[in-house]
Amino acid sequence: MTQRYDIAIVGSGPAALEAAINAKIRNKNIIIFGNKDFSGKLIKAPKINNYLGFYDIKGTELKNHFEEHIKNMGIQITEERIDSIYAMGEYFALMANQKQYEAKTIILAVGMEYGKQLKGEEGFLGRGVGYCATCDAPLYKGKSVTIIGYNKEAEEEANYVSELAAELHYIPMYKGEYDLNDKIQVINDKPIEIKGDEKVKKVIMENDSIDTDGVFILKDSIPPGQLVPGLEMEDEHIKVNKNMVTNIKGCFAAGDCTGKPYQYMKAAGEGQVAALSAVEYLSEI
Amino acid sequence: MTQRYDIAIVGSGPAALEAAINAKIRNKNIIIFGNKDFSGKLIKAPKINNYLGFYDIKGTELKNHFEEHIKNMGIQITEERIDSIYAMGEYFALMANQKQYEAKTIILAVGMEYGKQLKGEEGFLGRGVGYCATCDAPLYKGKSVTIIGYNKEAEEEANYVSELAAELHYIPMYKGEYDLNDKIQVINDKPIEIKGDEKVKKVIMENDSIDTDGVFILKDSIPPGQLVPGLEMEDEHIKVNKNMVTNIKGCFAAGDCTGKPYQYMKAAGEGQVAALSAVEYLSEI
Repeated sequence: MTQRYDIAIVGSGPAALEAAINAKIRNKNIIIFGNKDFSGKLIKAPKINNYLGFYDIKGTELKNHFEEHIKNMGIQITEERIDSIYAMGEYFALMANQKQYEAKTIILAVGMEYGKQLKGEEGFLGRGVGYCATCDAPLYKGKSVTIIGYNKEAEEEANYVSELAAELHYIPMYKGEYDLNDKIQVINDKPIEIKGDEKVKKVIMENDSIDTDGVFILKDSIPPGQLVPGLEMEDEHIKVNKNMVTNIKGCFAAGDCTGKPYQYMKAAGEGQVAALSAVEYLSEI
Repeated sequence: MTQRYDIAIVGSGPAALEAAINAKIRNKNIIIFGNKDFSGKLIKAPKINNYLGFYDIKGTELKNHFEEHIKNMGIQITEERIDSIYAMGEYFALMANQKQYEAKTIILAVGMEYGKQLKGEEGFLGRGVGYCATCDAPLYKGKSVTIIGYNKEAEEEANYVSELAAELHYIPMYKGEYDLNDKIQVINDKPIEIKGDEKVKKVIMENDSIDTDGVFILKDSIPPGQLVPGLEMEDEHIKVNKNMVTNIKGCFAAGDCTGKPYQYMKAAGEGQVAALSAVEYLSEI
């Protein structure tokens, strides 16, 4: 039987880490999904002056303090990108790659790094548009697939899918060397729109277009409304009340994904509140 | 002409300090009222584990980190207790002792250390009940005054008033040695209710009662609803929206005084949001 955690935290920025330490202090069995750098925004910050207690600190140094803190508390980041989360009534099922995790409550601290959606992306979701190439690869056996990759990790997924698909176009949204199979065609153009009728037919780019049966958009994180079906949004942010409670029972949110200002301290404060709300919810069920 | 600050911050806990550093980074001309220990709650904390970045830290040590941070940014605490704040339209007038300060916006970060009110306290406010003994002393020349003191600083005010009043009863709400004039009678009993008709007549205590013309209740801070006339409360907390905006234009609030959980990180996060909201408001007026 799959282990069922008390709290699954999705994200590893300041909101997620502060949520994790508060949940741990309250003796909850937690899992936190993210990456070992915590947050791209944090490690790239040349100088931070507004995180009370640390004056004139580099992002990488602040990251080291965070790392020491969670390590001392026995918290480890599970390096896995959660592709979808389903509210199953008594628990949440979190899907990552080929695995499934279970938790009684979830805290979404996914940041805002998923950027703008393409025209047609939301409309064709589940009808040719997906966010997890390895999950849905079997559906595209012998077909034509396009992958829009936002980071190097996407290359691995592209290689995997290329073994099944008849052809694979890879549109990299970043610069660098690409470690891709010879079978994969790299397209250096900017995707603008996804078109089709019942199902996806085409990716329209700035200068060209590709006929395709499926499009995978592989970013650091997935827009929360797509990640958790039924989650109520307010414009581009997750709708929460002051206790960081979303419209789904047992689902809490914190940090940039709940709204501006996009700041570390605001995020961390919300992470704390979300964790304490989750702890309270757990004591009630 | 009185100097007019951009932002006056009332309080010196984590919410107030985080507000101050954010306002300063945005080049605002600020003043922060509080005390040099920052927060009684903070310096008494034996061990703090949930302030991300500092694992297993004593309250006094965390206070030192905060102190170094604000010192490095040229921020100094003005040690003055604000007794009342009036919205004057274009600015706020903040009354402290015999002085008046002016600011275009205010951030209330007064904590929750003012405790419960006495029965009759709110009803007789301005009709015999006051929060600043030195301010109102002239009204009680030759009369009988009772001072309910919650800290040692109250003793100084009691000594001052005793020179004008015909008699002064001092009810200490703390233990220790009292540095009081011989003229002052110390009453060791627990005040329960303030009674009177048009004006205050009596203080009812657990075991006894005192006839009196005026009662001063001297605490670390004043309930925000009394501090700022017209401020909308929600139960015992200041009502704010997610941008930390109160019902009064230009008045923001952050920290414990806006609601639970009473936690440092939540407070600091709100202080940051309040400061950025105040900065935005200043750019609009």
